[in-house]
Amino acid sequence: MSELSVNHLLGIKYLNKQDIQLIFETADHFKEVINRPIKKVPSLRDITIANLFFENSTRTKLSFELAEKRLSADVINFSASQSSVKKGETLIDTVNNILSMKVDMVVMRHPNPGAGIFLSKHVNASIINAGDGAHEHPTQALLDSYSIREKFGEVKGKKVVIVGDILHSRVALSNIFALQLLGAKVMVCGPKTLIPKYITDLGVQVETDLRKALNWCDVANMLRVQNERMDISYFPTTREYTQQFGVDKALLDSLDKEITIMHPGPINRGVEITSDVADSKQAIILDQVQNGVAIRMAVIYLLASKIKQ
Amino acid sequence: MSELSVNHLLGIKYLNKQDIQLIFETADHFKEVINRPIKKVPSLRDITIANLFFENSTRTKLSFELAEKRLSADVINFSASQSSVKKGETLIDTVNNILSMKVDMVVMRHPNPGAGIFLSKHVNASIINAGDGAHEHPTQALLDSYSIREKFGEVKGKKVVIVGDILHSRVALSNIFALQLLGAKVMVCGPKTLIPKYITDLGVQVETDLRKALNWCDVANMLRVQNERMDISYFPTTREYTQQFGVDKALLDSLDKEITIMHPGPINRGVEITSDVADSKQAIILDQVQNGVAIRMAVIYLLASKIKQ
Amino acid sequence: MSELSVNHLLGIKYLNKQDIQLIFETADHFKEVINRPIKKVPSLRDITIANLFFENSTRTKLSFELAEKRLSADVINFSASQSSVKKGETLIDTVNNILSMKVDMVVMRHPNPGAGIFLSKHVNASIINAGDGAHEHPTQALLDSYSIREKFGEVKGKKVVIVGDILHSRVALSNIFALQLLGAKVMVCGPKTLIPKYITDLGVQVETDLRKALNWCDVANMLRVQNERMDISYFPTTREYTQQFGVDKALLDSLDKEITIMHPGPINRGVEITSDVADSKQAIILDQVQNGVAIRMAVIYLLASKIKQ
Repeated sequence: MSELSVNHLLGIKYLNKQDIQLIFETADHFKEVINRPIKKVPSLRDITIANLFFENSTRTKLSFELAEKRLSADVINFSASQSSVKKGETLIDTVNNILSMKVDMVVMRHPNPGAGIFLSKHVNASIINAGDGAHEHPTQALLDSYSIREKFGEVKGKKVVIVGDILHSRVALSNIFALQLLGAKVMVCGPKTLIPKYITDLGVQVETDLRKALNWCDVANMLRVQNERMDISYFPTTREYTQQFGVDKALLDSLDKEITIMHPGPINRGVEITSDVADSKQAIILDQVQNGVAIRMAVIYLLASKIKQ
Repeated sequence: MSELSVNHLLGIKYLNKQDIQLIFETADHFKEVINRPIKKVPSLRDITIANLFFENSTRTKLSFELAEKRLSADVINFSASQSSVKKGETLIDTVNNILSMKVDMVVMRHPNPGAGIFLSKHVNASIINAGDGAHEHPTQALLDSYSIREKFGEVKGKKVVIVGDILHSRVALSNIFALQLLGAKVMVCGPKTLIPKYITDLGVQVETDLRKALNWCDVANMLRVQNERMDISYFPTTREYTQQFGVDKALLDSLDKEITIMHPGPINRGVEITSDVADSKQAIILDQVQNGVAIRMAVIYLLASKIKQ
Repeated sequence: MSELSVNHLLGIKYLNKQDIQLIFETADHFKEVINRPIKKVPSLRDITIANLFFENSTRTKLSFELAEKRLSADVINFSASQSSVKKGETLIDTVNNILSMKVDMVVMRHPNPGAGIFLSKHVNASIINAGDGAHEHPTQALLDSYSIREKFGEVKGKKVVIVGDILHSRVALSNIFALQLLGAKVMVCGPKTLIPKYITDLGVQVETDLRKALNWCDVANMLRVQNERMDISYFPTTREYTQQFGVDKALLDSLDKEITIMHPGPINRGVEITSDVADSKQAIILDQVQNGVAIRMAVIYLLASKIKQ
């Protein structure tokens, strides 16, 4: 039987190509499930999952919750605002307490890069990283690559440009790892101050001219402008950003070929992309959201089967 | 088979008399269900419902949640304070994202009048309006009329006075529509500044003398004084309000006949009604709450059966 | 058939020894259940429980929620921050509204001592006190005594010292009642200003010298320093507290015998106990957490069986 090479999903960095393929094939099955009238399977009736969100999140949290419920897992939610964290408890103590209540798996979003990795070394549960600071957001990268595979049949050989603030983006880093593992060619495009120097060491092309990047690519993944995550000195104003790195329909239509537009959401309409782009047939943004549930079901299912052994 | 004439519950304004009767008959069935030891039916195991509350709410949210769980629907909750709304996402994008996760029905409370109507035109899901600003609160009106029907056998011919701030009240407006559809006679009573001019065009009587209104009616629906929703210049002080429009036991006992007291809750005891009125046998306030669950089960059930066709 | 002598769990003060023994034996059964792969039993499919938390809580709320879900009860959550309480509604009205939705049991945390007792006299549901101000926290005391029984075989004859702020602690008071009912010898130890005068009337020994207290006891229950609950004038600084009443490994190792360390959590590492103490084999802190779920399942199960009669 195939199984993952890892006991946690801490980052794409820790996966191999076979892991991703196994996740995709499992997601194919669950995507069928969630398109049936009864969208639930009883697979994980014996698993209790705690969702620990130390940062606000809407779509990722909802997507994980739905994935867990559709696998029939027991779910408990824990958010920082209600938490003992404020009372000075350490992260390990908080998590060990929750695990003592017989929890099998922890889905965690945390502002500190590496929080999941640290935790996985100190507690006895399967950890899924749902975003750790500017580090990794592995399920987002998996659903992005899965959506490209769905659109094109395979990821291998596809040219993908990631547009925006690469420096502060966990989505960018996880995407680069996943796309390269699967044999895609990756370029990043954005303001020079927001492209980290190590990016070329990763074998990623850098382009600061958006039109050139778009003419090169098959897929453009338009990162969200996250004012809240930004050291303001790195960055032009939002208007300047949009002028240089925003995509509108005129730009799209002027390209040599029809490219596919992705966005991890939530969209700032009129900033990263205009409304007509977001709503065009070239955008697969809502497919990404739907695939997110299937991918998360697959990851949870595969990690749970390792716990049970 | 009977079915609703609508695919959404956006307001009483969009229902016909047969719709309300169908909802009431379905609620009769569910009221039996929730009075059995096992209060659940497996009817909607294949439906996923998202509760989207962009305004705080306790009782309405709990009532919907219980209704959904007792129908065995899958439920996800989303409240504005955790939401991407803060991040500048549009309402349609937020909802489309949720729907992409294979959600069938949206229960929404929103501060903007018409938010549900707008949404119903742009997204592909059944929408239930759980209160949209000062516009409509249709399930509240349905449970109010259902409670009158339960008390008197029928709504037709009953005289109902709605007391309070009519101008800012979605409860008042939805009640007026429902009561008139069902053949009741409706009067409003409150400070002149809080009665909108269009009210007489709706065929509603206006009375500013509370004693006269109470002597006329069979039922008085005492609206909550909502300081938080009030443009202060419209309004006397709370004490002045209570002196003119509050009901105490002495006033009740001095009337020509025994009238029935309703209140949508939460009660400001000593403001709209005194404690002895709230706790008297003439008050059916807790019946209203219980009926709320049955009515919401009926509405959800009937709309879901249209999705499945 | 054995059953509890009470219809509510308002405080240990209202239980007799047989009640506690019945709860412990029932918890033994549920502890087995939660250590099985399928941690759920269908016992309470016909019970709806409302968790009403008028104060923040993480572990107690999670523990109750898990206990309820593992008994297959329907669960609704209600926290003060979302609540009508802010809108001026009385506690009885809030609870009666919830009960009108056909709720069978209320788990309540409230800042006011006696809130649960008051409520139990005015509403028609089984009430479990999950902490009422500085008064009682009965399930915590039950899980503490249960953990001592698990460690030593029985509670009778064991010497237990409760260390810390006795004056403001509901955990201390409930523990004293439970331990005495079960035949343990109880001592309190802490700053003089934080030990109430009535404590000796309860038959509890008082000791202000921590080393003497630890040399006397079999078990030390180290209360959390709750700055948020403290009238500052009663209390030394945190550093002074730790110097006099904190336990480190050197102190533990210098005692005449090996004692057991308990803590209700969340731990302030380095304040009440150092990290090496918290993580030592003498500490049974995580066992307490695990036992908490089993104890709460037992309490809910036993109270529910009285409702059904």
